Amino acid sequence: MTEDEINARANEKARNRKAAREKMLADKTKEKGLLIVHTGKGKGKSTAAFGLVFRALGNNMRVGVVQFVKGKWETGERVALEKFSDQVTIKAMGEGFTWDTQDRARDIAAAKGAWEMAKEMIDACRGPDRPYDMILLDELNIVLRYDYLPLDEVVAFLDKRPEMLHVIVTGRNAKPDLIEAADLVTEMTQVKHPFREQGVKAQLGVEF
Amino acid sequence: MTEDEINARANEKARNRKAAREKMLADKTKEKGLLIVHTGKGKGKSTAAFGLVFRALGNNMRVGVVQFVKGKWETGERVALEKFSDQVTIKAMGEGFTWDTQDRARDIAAAKGAWEMAKEMIDACRGPDRPYDMILLDELNIVLRYDYLPLDEVVAFLDKRPEMLHVIVTGRNAKPDLIEAADLVTEMTQVKHPFREQGVKAQLGVEF
Repeated sequence: MTEDEINARANEKARNRKAAREKMLADKTKEKGLLIVHTGKGKGKSTAAFGLVFRALGNNMRVGVVQFVKGKWETGERVALEKFSDQVTIKAMGEGFTWDTQDRARDIAAAKGAWEMAKEMIDACRGPDRPYDMILLDELNIVLRYDYLPLDEVVAFLDKRPEMLHVIVTGRNAKPDLIEAADLVTEMTQVKHPFREQGVKAQLGVEF
Repeated sequence: MTEDEINARANEKARNRKAAREKMLADKTKEKGLLIVHTGKGKGKSTAAFGLVFRALGNNMRVGVVQFVKGKWETGERVALEKFSDQVTIKAMGEGFTWDTQDRARDIAAAKGAWEMAKEMIDACRGPDRPYDMILLDELNIVLRYDYLPLDEVVAFLDKRPEMLHVIVTGRNAKPDLIEAADLVTEMTQVKHPFREQGVKAQLGVEF
């Protein structure tokens, strides 16, 4: 084939793809708040949620964040969010779960406290003047995995969230019941990691 | 076991995990710019990159962005980035590749133009006063997949990037040669998608 023929064939295929995509979008008309889950062992779960938060903020939406793991977000994220301080509310358990935890009883209490805050934020959105358009429950999967919260209750509550509210849940090992209840689930898989394979140390602005 | 025994056992395990983690981190001392790839068919590739960009901006770093697919980023992202206009530079091909492309020859020219801009930005970082700490090549994988750019040349160039510069490449179907050259590769896998399964339409602030 000549270059012209290759181009003509590619353009023909592109026209077909475009037509198929337009037909698919025309069929989809439902609008509702989504329950989004980012899970998997790879990087990018919280970071992609963080990207969604910034896109929402850029769209003039209001965002609530509950951090279930203490010290997970670093300075960069907090400084960046401060630019939108009138649109974003961050709640974290002062004495919350940390990766270095040495005290399971205290962690359970912290997880329960954070979940109460999450429920309060979500419940506040049931009225017509909802204070948030999106709520991020960062690392909720971790505390569910450790059975620090009653899974049935959490899933049932998220399933009955206000209709137009987007809720994002992050953390590895998402429970199957939560995946079942979710609208959109992405698994981040680690293909290559500099820590493990190359002895590269964690670095400002990149480690996540 | 009593609740006290469960807690004691969990705390013992946690101490061991902490010790192992500290040992691992102590072994890792190399610091360098990372070549990061986000690929896979799931959502969150560009969004996680976008999250990394904001974290870097929050850490007072300077970021360059080259968009290989026109119209990929929507208003939300641009508005959010404008809050950091003194730290971020965005380049996009005005006549760039789009998902609805009907003209392959024009797309190839656009891809080559965007790649020249990317090379210029990266080359500018070879001196001591580098203008960027991180460069995002958004959707570069797409144009590589369509063979719009010479893969060997692109991979060799990225492999010889300035030592302290972080480069992020996004897009599905990352080429194996690029994965081989990368330091950190995450694959985003779609587990559940509201478009396909539930007839939910694309929505402001969430679709990505």
